[in-house]
Amino acid sequence: MTRAYERLNDQLRVIEMIPNYIMHPEGSVLVSFGDTKVICSASIEERVPPFLRGQGKGWVTAEYAMLPRATGTRNVRESSKGKVTGRTMEIQRLIGRALRSVIDLDALGERTIWVDCDVIQADGGTRTASITGAFTAVALAFEQLIQDEKLTKNPMTDFLAAISVGVSSDGEVLLDLDYNEDSAADVDMNVVMTGSAELVEVQGTGEEATFSRKEMNRMLDVAEIGIARLIEVQRDVIGEFAETIGQQQVAAWSSAAGEGNEK
Amino acid sequence: MTRAYERLNDQLRVIEMIPNYIMHPEGSVLVSFGDTKVICSASIEERVPPFLRGQGKGWVTAEYAMLPRATGTRNVRESSKGKVTGRTMEIQRLIGRALRSVIDLDALGERTIWVDCDVIQADGGTRTASITGAFTAVALAFEQLIQDEKLTKNPMTDFLAAISVGVSSDGEVLLDLDYNEDSAADVDMNVVMTGSAELVEVQGTGEEATFSRKEMNRMLDVAEIGIARLIEVQRDVIGEFAETIGQQQVAAWSSAAGEGNEK
Amino acid sequence: MTRAYERLNDQLRVIEMIPNYIMHPEGSVLVSFGDTKVICSASIEERVPPFLRGQGKGWVTAEYAMLPRATGTRNVRESSKGKVTGRTMEIQRLIGRALRSVIDLDALGERTIWVDCDVIQADGGTRTASITGAFTAVALAFEQLIQDEKLTKNPMTDFLAAISVGVSSDGEVLLDLDYNEDSAADVDMNVVMTGSAELVEVQGTGEEATFSRKEMNRMLDVAEIGIARLIEVQRDVIGEFAETIGQQQVAAWSSAAGEGNEK
Amino acid sequence: MTRAYERLNDQLRVIEMIPNYIMHPEGSVLVSFGDTKVICSASIEERVPPFLRGQGKGWVTAEYAMLPRATGTRNVRESSKGKVTGRTMEIQRLIGRALRSVIDLDALGERTIWVDCDVIQADGGTRTASITGAFTAVALAFEQLIQDEKLTKNPMTDFLAAISVGVSSDGEVLLDLDYNEDSAADVDMNVVMTGSAELVEVQGTGEEATFSRKEMNRMLDVAEIGIARLIEVQRDVIGEFAETIGQQQVAAWSSAAGEGNEK
Amino acid sequence: MTRAYERLNDQLRVIEMIPNYIMHPEGSVLVSFGDTKVICSASIEERVPPFLRGQGKGWVTAEYAMLPRATGTRNVRESSKGKVTGRTMEIQRLIGRALRSVIDLDALGERTIWVDCDVIQADGGTRTASITGAFTAVALAFEQLIQDEKLTKNPMTDFLAAISVGVSSDGEVLLDLDYNEDSAADVDMNVVMTGSAELVEVQGTGEEATFSRKEMNRMLDVAEIGIARLIEVQRDVIGEFAETIGQQQVAAWSSAAGEGNEK
Amino acid sequence: MTRAYERLNDQLRVIEMIPNYIMHPEGSVLVSFGDTKVICSASIEERVPPFLRGQGKGWVTAEYAMLPRATGTRNVRESSKGKVTGRTMEIQRLIGRALRSVIDLDALGERTIWVDCDVIQADGGTRTASITGAFTAVALAFEQLIQDEKLTKNPMTDFLAAISVGVSSDGEVLLDLDYNEDSAADVDMNVVMTGSAELVEVQGTGEEATFSRKEMNRMLDVAEIGIARLIEVQRDVIGEFAETIGQQQVAAWSSAAGEGNEK
Repeated sequence: MTRAYERLNDQLRVIEMIPNYIMHPEGSVLVSFGDTKVICSASIEERVPPFLRGQGKGWVTAEYAMLPRATGTRNVRESSKGKVTGRTMEIQRLIGRALRSVIDLDALGERTIWVDCDVIQADGGTRTASITGAFTAVALAFEQLIQDEKLTKNPMTDFLAAISVGVSSDGEVLLDLDYNEDSAADVDMNVVMTGSAELVEVQGTGEEATFSRKEMNRMLDVAEIGIARLIEVQRDVIGEFAETIGQQQVAAWSSAAGEGNEK
Repeated sequence: MTRAYERLNDQLRVIEMIPNYIMHPEGSVLVSFGDTKVICSASIEERVPPFLRGQGKGWVTAEYAMLPRATGTRNVRESSKGKVTGRTMEIQRLIGRALRSVIDLDALGERTIWVDCDVIQADGGTRTASITGAFTAVALAFEQLIQDEKLTKNPMTDFLAAISVGVSSDGEVLLDLDYNEDSAADVDMNVVMTGSAELVEVQGTGEEATFSRKEMNRMLDVAEIGIARLIEVQRDVIGEFAETIGQQQVAAWSSAAGEGNEK
Repeated sequence: MTRAYERLNDQLRVIEMIPNYIMHPEGSVLVSFGDTKVICSASIEERVPPFLRGQGKGWVTAEYAMLPRATGTRNVRESSKGKVTGRTMEIQRLIGRALRSVIDLDALGERTIWVDCDVIQADGGTRTASITGAFTAVALAFEQLIQDEKLTKNPMTDFLAAISVGVSSDGEVLLDLDYNEDSAADVDMNVVMTGSAELVEVQGTGEEATFSRKEMNRMLDVAEIGIARLIEVQRDVIGEFAETIGQQQVAAWSSAAGEGNEK
Repeated sequence: MTRAYERLNDQLRVIEMIPNYIMHPEGSVLVSFGDTKVICSASIEERVPPFLRGQGKGWVTAEYAMLPRATGTRNVRESSKGKVTGRTMEIQRLIGRALRSVIDLDALGERTIWVDCDVIQADGGTRTASITGAFTAVALAFEQLIQDEKLTKNPMTDFLAAISVGVSSDGEVLLDLDYNEDSAADVDMNVVMTGSAELVEVQGTGEEATFSRKEMNRMLDVAEIGIARLIEVQRDVIGEFAETIGQQQVAAWSSAAGEGNEK
Repeated sequence: MTRAYERLNDQLRVIEMIPNYIMHPEGSVLVSFGDTKVICSASIEERVPPFLRGQGKGWVTAEYAMLPRATGTRNVRESSKGKVTGRTMEIQRLIGRALRSVIDLDALGERTIWVDCDVIQADGGTRTASITGAFTAVALAFEQLIQDEKLTKNPMTDFLAAISVGVSSDGEVLLDLDYNEDSAADVDMNVVMTGSAELVEVQGTGEEATFSRKEMNRMLDVAEIGIARLIEVQRDVIGEFAETIGQQQVAAWSSAAGEGNEK
Repeated sequence: MTRAYERLNDQLRVIEMIPNYIMHPEGSVLVSFGDTKVICSASIEERVPPFLRGQGKGWVTAEYAMLPRATGTRNVRESSKGKVTGRTMEIQRLIGRALRSVIDLDALGERTIWVDCDVIQADGGTRTASITGAFTAVALAFEQLIQDEKLTKNPMTDFLAAISVGVSSDGEVLLDLDYNEDSAADVDMNVVMTGSAELVEVQGTGEEATFSRKEMNRMLDVAEIGIARLIEVQRDVIGEFAETIGQQQVAAWSSAAGEGNEK
């Protein structure tokens, strides 16, 4: 089987990020993983949700949506349905959790970062593109906060990116699946990793089959290749400000206290 | 008072339309009125709502939304609120009604055109940009239907565009108000017109003042100038296919039967 | 074509207002435009919505509903549907905006006027009857507030009434359309005007056709006749208290600040 | 303690019913129990809910609402809240169940009677006024159906009315409590009875106290007096058609099959 | 007709209560009336709803639900439907009202008792089992509060239990109907009584027939027998702490002030 | 650090399953993982959702909920909130997906298995207990279907169980975390595996830290131990019928076609 655009199995699609794509947010980016295109924005609100008030620490939360015709057939708008689907909730919880793992919430101070990931065109991998773009948008927003002298240091402790890997029906391990590949794959795994190649989140699912420990390991190997390349692109877009990431010495990791009872 | 970018009072902002901006819809366009940017798409569904079934005629309906951070301060997502605001409903009803006034629903046949207008950046005039862009997206979708031999003739009976006009607090009549001008204006009017300079919809509101018949007439004069210019841009984008608009001989206008009881 | 009850084209239906129709509200009226009957009430709440708190000014807001069997076929109750339709939202936003245009919100002080318009029988023109009746109910409530020494002056700056006009399919301009006329009309326009014949709101729609500038002007001429007559009826019902309307010297018009971002 | 308007303890308030109060429904009445006023209407729909289809029998269902300012302080509209309160649901289930007890659903045939009870002014006893008025509205609708030759016989098996009784804090048993009496009462009981003095529904509640078997019996005695008087008023309003009630020989009572699982 | 398990007409099913059935609530019980099984829990919250704040008195409220497959055919989950049915609301209002009739809310102090009744298996009588079990769970919670020295006296003024009675189609009066008996009964009545045999709530409904005063009295006689037996079981489960019930001298009964406007 | 009840790091809590715990469902079990207790039931519906109709294959779907007081502090009921939380949706999607991986939907035929997992007491691991118990309940339901001669063969292709593993803050890998351990853990991973030790789902999250590939491998090793033990317990409960699991020769795995667009 040959992949579209003659990609190798462990090769990403064309990755692009246009910084400051829209004018109002403190940070924004249009991220493309091939034909998948997501507008990611980071907005600063100078207060935190009730469960964190008065603790001197910040919060990062994310929302995710698709334009109705981002996909091959039109989806009913979630605002018309009057509710958010389970899939959307899963994705936005994942994006927020992943970002919080590389942001020192104490260093952020009592403010909230609202991340919005709006998919304008979908061709597989919308959640991984969203995480990767969201990281960049948040970095641009932090740069702005430091320029405005509201922050003295970048609260980011490391880089962060996400990629999908899978096992095709003929047993090949593929990196960054497009929609057709994803629909045909036996196993689908999303991996979120830091710039230090530490794992943040691993979600592997046998959609039409189970998978072995060996296949799992091979998928993680390939994911590492992709993550490293994505972080290179982030570094380019962020420019000099990239040097400030990870400078923060973190004594204790920030804990997701607000979700305690529900965990 | 001078306008931003040294515009004259009866001059539009920079108008741009990028056709086929996203790949899945049958027709799409990214329309800009200055810094206001809207993705308009037209999707074809091969059936009609229940109230029209079996009558051999089509339907056109529209939905409108803004990205949460299309504006200066972030808006709560309507899908999170679980309901669509009154403002959104007003706008999407207006877009659908306006488009139906220049589409021969009998000629369209039993299919629905779903128009989606998603504002990615807002600076005043989002509803007029949406109508103007939506007309173009629908034209591109009709071109596709004819190429696919699903339609033999373009069901559009005329061009259609929309523009805002207003009276500033110092009494000047302004065309195509940006957000700052709109916020400061005493009177605000949205005008939808056809290529034959016939009125389709007039909605004038004294937000901070009442207005006289004379002011109303002056506003309509200026609106006509803007509409004519917008239709030139549409003509450019649509290209040769523009020649097919209005060819349709319409014996009886299509009636908005489905809204009967509620009108 | 002859109109029902041998009305002339520029003649209203029989207009009646029964003041204090229900006993609990500070002001109430049962308004009839022919067979269209609406209970309008004005309730005083001694506080304002959050966006206005501490500014020393008041607010006026309106809600509109129909009994399920106010119409020829029964409508599903909006409380059963769990949501308010777009049409209802449009109408209640219009009623509130229109009333605010003739009420000095600074003179009102930090209190809210809740206007409820409940249609008990519908035969066309429910929104114009609602605005015209609501103005009267609010005047009665203000009279009560002054008697209770909570206000010293009437905050109303002018009279206000609303009427529909239209163009029939045979080209005649008609005043105050009943349901049958409205269903058959090519063009439908609602006009809200003050006692000084200034325009407050103009909403014209070509439901089955477009319309020319000339037709628009003819409709406005006829609307003025109707508005003047409606204000005579209001004056009768309000009695002596009518003298206090417009006494208020208004330096600056009250601005609809609360809707800023959404306008 | 003297009652308002010098009523005796076992005396009703002034009872009035204006038949055909609104023009569209098949049957309607404005019922007053003193200052409590309810518009009751009965609408015919020529089909039944899914759980009854194809069984040749009909259905009767009821909805109840209050105008926001029917009461001393304004209530939030249930359509704005997006849901119906528990109190409203209790009342509308009670009205429907009571009416079904005196209507032969087999004789009705496959059609639904939609009963709407809209309280325009409330002063205690809105649910009993609703049931009593609803019975009358339904009778008028049946008269219409027989005139239209859609029915040959009146499906009503008996008269039906409802009244409240209570025990005051000084131990007196009162008939037809107004709002002040109801608020001060220790015990509150709603009784629905037929023209043959059979019980259909008894709902007694010790709001601020418990009550003895003896008090319960005294309350039922007084309720019987009130019910008999209410049925006289119904008989007057219905006129000659009253003779057709109860003619129907009923072999087997109609069962509330549709609520089976939930009973 | 013989009853299942050879019960006499005035005999209860096997009644069981397992105290402290789940570990987290301050009080809990698994109550069985034959095959009907309900988990009742009482949770203490150290604050009251807004309408009671600052008055020094407490509140008791209840929620009721069934597992989807507590019944013979699976019910759709109310959380999936996005709303609570009318039947559920009726039952939870009844449970709360009944409990408040034997709890001195002043003696309780500014705290709320949340009662949860979750039916895990249903065979008729779920509401009466819920009230009877809820009383026990609340008593256990009060015992805990006294042990924790948050209360000095038990605020319960009397015992409380509930039972269903009915009239079968062959005219026999039955106690504690199971699902089959309930489905076949002509009349169905739920009775809530105190340890002093005073009535708290009587809800009788002719589901397929009306009923006479004589039948009503016979049903109340039989209900008294059942209530007395249920209170014996409660006394056993509560143990020594039962002695503290009713010690409280109550000058004035606590009034359900918060529901004033809605009563 | 010592674990509660002196457990070893790679030891499960006490695991119990009471089969046929409630009487109405085709299959049910009360599963306990220590103090975590979940009622799992499997209900058969003899039809499939619309997206599968006419394809001759079945469907398995799951719902998950907690009693309000299953936890240390009371949670608001999702039916009262009117919506299901993101966490609940994630869990119920996971349960359904996991079960479908070991059920041959073609062999099941056109029927739906509704799985309900209701947590009555929570102490960590509610989702893994739910999956493990749900598998057992479904097996019991299939046994019933075969006894009723609606199925000839068990459609289960393998056993299935789930367990949590984590890394404590002092770096130890723990099996089957209770609530306190889970709250304190740095990394949390849920693993779903088959009887053949193949992976079905892996969800690892660094809640307060990232994790290395090495730690991930150690967690999977320990999970395998737990899964094997859980399947022993399932085998005991299911009895002889366990022999029928995996007999089914599966040519092609059943595909989750219904979620296509959303995947």
